[in-house]
Amino acid sequence: MIITVSREFGSGGRELGKRLADALGLQYYDKELIEEIARTTALDEKYVTKVLEKGGFANFAFSFAHSLPLSATTPNTVTDVLVAHQKIVTAIAEKGDCVIVGRCADAIAEKYNPVKIFVYADEQSKIKRCRERATEGEDLSDKALKKSFKRIDKGRAKLHDLLSSTPWGEKTGYDLMINTTRIEIKDIIPQLADLCSELANDKR
Amino acid sequence: MIITVSREFGSGGRELGKRLADALGLQYYDKELIEEIARTTALDEKYVTKVLEKGGFANFAFSFAHSLPLSATTPNTVTDVLVAHQKIVTAIAEKGDCVIVGRCADAIAEKYNPVKIFVYADEQSKIKRCRERATEGEDLSDKALKKSFKRIDKGRAKLHDLLSSTPWGEKTGYDLMINTTRIEIKDIIPQLADLCSELANDKR
Repeated sequence: MIITVSREFGSGGRELGKRLADALGLQYYDKELIEEIARTTALDEKYVTKVLEKGGFANFAFSFAHSLPLSATTPNTVTDVLVAHQKIVTAIAEKGDCVIVGRCADAIAEKYNPVKIFVYADEQSKIKRCRERATEGEDLSDKALKKSFKRIDKGRAKLHDLLSSTPWGEKTGYDLMINTTRIEIKDIIPQLADLCSELANDKR
Repeated sequence: MIITVSREFGSGGRELGKRLADALGLQYYDKELIEEIARTTALDEKYVTKVLEKGGFANFAFSFAHSLPLSATTPNTVTDVLVAHQKIVTAIAEKGDCVIVGRCADAIAEKYNPVKIFVYADEQSKIKRCRERATEGEDLSDKALKKSFKRIDKGRAKLHDLLSSTPWGEKTGYDLMINTTRIEIKDIIPQLADLCSELANDKR
């Protein structure tokens, strides 16, 4: 059983994925993937994060490289990250029994027949969630947060476009889409876990 | 507890709504609404159906009227249908404990805090479903069915636009969106019913 959780930034997709993994006794992958890609490519974790956040755009390597050690500045490093990313997600999907949050796992793991979830929420609820989870020093004005939502989700959509013919967030690409605007995620986990189990059974 | 089920034509939304109502012991409304609107307005059921299917477009009354008895040809009949439609759906929502399929109930019953579901599927699966449920004499070619999907869903979207600022089928307007492409609807009903109960509790 594989569950992929795609999500709008700030909608609680990570929390939902983690809780779902715990409820179903499945391995959980999110930022662990970044560490693994960094290890495999011998590139900086921050660099790997940025490449995936920017949707892997090729010219990015050159503009971003200036702020990194020289070892990370070869023109092929973006490709290295993308190749490692695909290999690692594929290897995880092959083992099965996991929840993978983000990282285009819905597209990469497609042939392993995952249950594909998309999590979303309205802007005000995403702002509230981001404020509750903020670290010190972050700009938490409405304006700054809305800009972050736009920038981060645009990067996710771009990365998805590299790997799938279905646009990110378009309903046909998912089995289930969940609006977290007016719910407490933890409250729906037992019922959602049961539904995911049944969806996984039915899709086999 | 109120559940509204919006759906793409051919995606099994009616089956899902009926089964959900049975599982939860809720009253079920779909075509019953048409009968009630026809009774209230003293208009023909076919006429009421057509007005709602066409999204209530005003000029429709004149073009369609030719094929109906004279009693149904006044220019105000479209408005009569739309007004009766809203009143009847509101009255049903006010009583509560029901599943309403289609008829823009998600928009009309909004203030009663319904759990809003949208059901969709890919084109091939909708074609298959329509063929399985066809009545004799229907044109069941791919071309004819695809044309029906487009025409009927366009009418649903237009009617929705009259009553809501959120476009029909746009995820922000729903709590849960379910893709029926690769599942047997009946298999997921127990789990979905539990999830809907929890969503209804959480939203109160």
